Amino acid sequence: MKQIDIAIVGGGPAGLTAAIYAARERLNTVVIDEYAGGQILQADIVDNYPALPSITGEELGEAFRSHAEEKGAEFLECAVTAIEKNGDSFALKVFDGVEESDLQAKSVIYAAGCQHRHLNIPGEERLTGHGVSYCASCDAAFYPDKAVAVIGGGNTALAEALLLSRVAKNVYLIHRRDTFRASADIVETVRNTENIQLIMDTIPLEITGEQSVETLQLQHKITGKQFTLLVDGIFVAVGMLPDTKVISHLADIDEGGYVIADETGVTSCAGLFAAGDIRTKQFRQVVTAAADGANCVKSAEQYLQKR
Amino acid sequence: MKQIDIAIVGGGPAGLTAAIYAARERLNTVVIDEYAGGQILQADIVDNYPALPSITGEELGEAFRSHAEEKGAEFLECAVTAIEKNGDSFALKVFDGVEESDLQAKSVIYAAGCQHRHLNIPGEERLTGHGVSYCASCDAAFYPDKAVAVIGGGNTALAEALLLSRVAKNVYLIHRRDTFRASADIVETVRNTENIQLIMDTIPLEITGEQSVETLQLQHKITGKQFTLLVDGIFVAVGMLPDTKVISHLADIDEGGYVIADETGVTSCAGLFAAGDIRTKQFRQVVTAAADGANCVKSAEQYLQKR
Repeated sequence: MKQIDIAIVGGGPAGLTAAIYAARERLNTVVIDEYAGGQILQADIVDNYPALPSITGEELGEAFRSHAEEKGAEFLECAVTAIEKNGDSFALKVFDGVEESDLQAKSVIYAAGCQHRHLNIPGEERLTGHGVSYCASCDAAFYPDKAVAVIGGGNTALAEALLLSRVAKNVYLIHRRDTFRASADIVETVRNTENIQLIMDTIPLEITGEQSVETLQLQHKITGKQFTLLVDGIFVAVGMLPDTKVISHLADIDEGGYVIADETGVTSCAGLFAAGDIRTKQFRQVVTAAADGANCVKSAEQYLQKR
Repeated sequence: MKQIDIAIVGGGPAGLTAAIYAARERLNTVVIDEYAGGQILQADIVDNYPALPSITGEELGEAFRSHAEEKGAEFLECAVTAIEKNGDSFALKVFDGVEESDLQAKSVIYAAGCQHRHLNIPGEERLTGHGVSYCASCDAAFYPDKAVAVIGGGNTALAEALLLSRVAKNVYLIHRRDTFRASADIVETVRNTENIQLIMDTIPLEITGEQSVETLQLQHKITGKQFTLLVDGIFVAVGMLPDTKVISHLADIDEGGYVIADETGVTSCAGLFAAGDIRTKQFRQVVTAAADGANCVKSAEQYLQKR
């Protein structure tokens, strides 16, 4: 069976940038995803991918994809169901929705992305992109002088609350416990920020709104009392779900479920590189995912030369 | 004197992305550069900034700049002549071409970029962007089935030769010594690559061409014999010149002259962050510089919270 140079698993900004770089360098590559473009396709407006302000998520995802296509990248519209390493080659099983087939690659760039953990309450899915957001860095700027709620109690939730406090008028921080998991210094800063109001021991029940978010229904866990906040935006920060099941037997994974790799994308498994939201990193953004794609091709190229 | 939150030194893709992120998060920031846009402005065509294929360097630089302006970033058209740290504040001296003034900042993102070392031979400057390139990853794709020369003997030069060997028809690798500084494995791969021809003990004298590169004039150092190669492209890989003189007394610098920092941009000096080509990294590209700008704002934000 013919071996390709790099199998790119995942067609978001990381995978598509890897495809652009690999195609321009005439490496034999294929991008494997059910539909390339990535979760960015679901974003309403993306305003922080540098040099392309206020673009819709769909336009941005398609722009990444068409750039890769234009450079000659090849696509396989399949899910990857298994990856094994045999000697210095990788064997991938892919599924096109009808039948499974095999693929041999000298190296793999794993760029499968991450899902944000959801609240799974009524209104959340319907109003995602219309007031419900999973990324304050991306969307805070859309709420100048408005009222917003952040749901969560970890470092990410508190950092999002602080960021929002500089843009929005009022920030409600809703946490289901009576203490925060976040580090002490950030907790103190949040407590000292005038326009952040803490609502502890409280769980979200429902999000309402016609065209966009209007209210957040809450329940106090101890008293059982239900109450309603009038908010324009709701930022859900209750964790991420990195999907590494097809590679977790090959590469080291951290306690949060992310593939352990620095900016070079090099993992504990020779020839397997991790790009984008799936790897350990401080800031998961379209532009940092794209940078990872470029870096992983550089790393793969060095690996292929020595192989 | 009023203190700003972040002084961003350098207005290339790294500094401008930092400005976009900082402005969107309502951090009080100023970008300081004689003219924001960065060295990308000098590039002919940039084809590897993801989602914006085949854009001129000027258009791309202006797109970064106008995105930052649109988000409310402020600019100071000055050179930075000195940076000192006093307690937990930074004092910057800036020069607008007429007079020097002072600026106080709580933190600094240093994104001053790097210059490529030049050959300083006739024709080089005139034909830069018209066949003379300093980045094979950026420009190799413009030379399918053509003849190109790479000048240099380090890892970068050899990696560029290998990359070009997959795209171009013939690659001449010109080095002024009889051995390479590059690592043994890459030297061996280069020697085993059919369409790379090594030309050792040889120095470049002149580049000629009307609209674009036509010939490279060379001289053998031992015999003194002069000869001419017909080439379409010349890739100069004789090193970089990172400019860190205003911060080298504050932060650790590596032997190559780069500021030591990982992808978070955190340097050995608290409150001083390094973004883009100026820091230690494996791959200096527009997209990796932009990612650095985003990461440095994240890092600066964490620093400012604790400060």
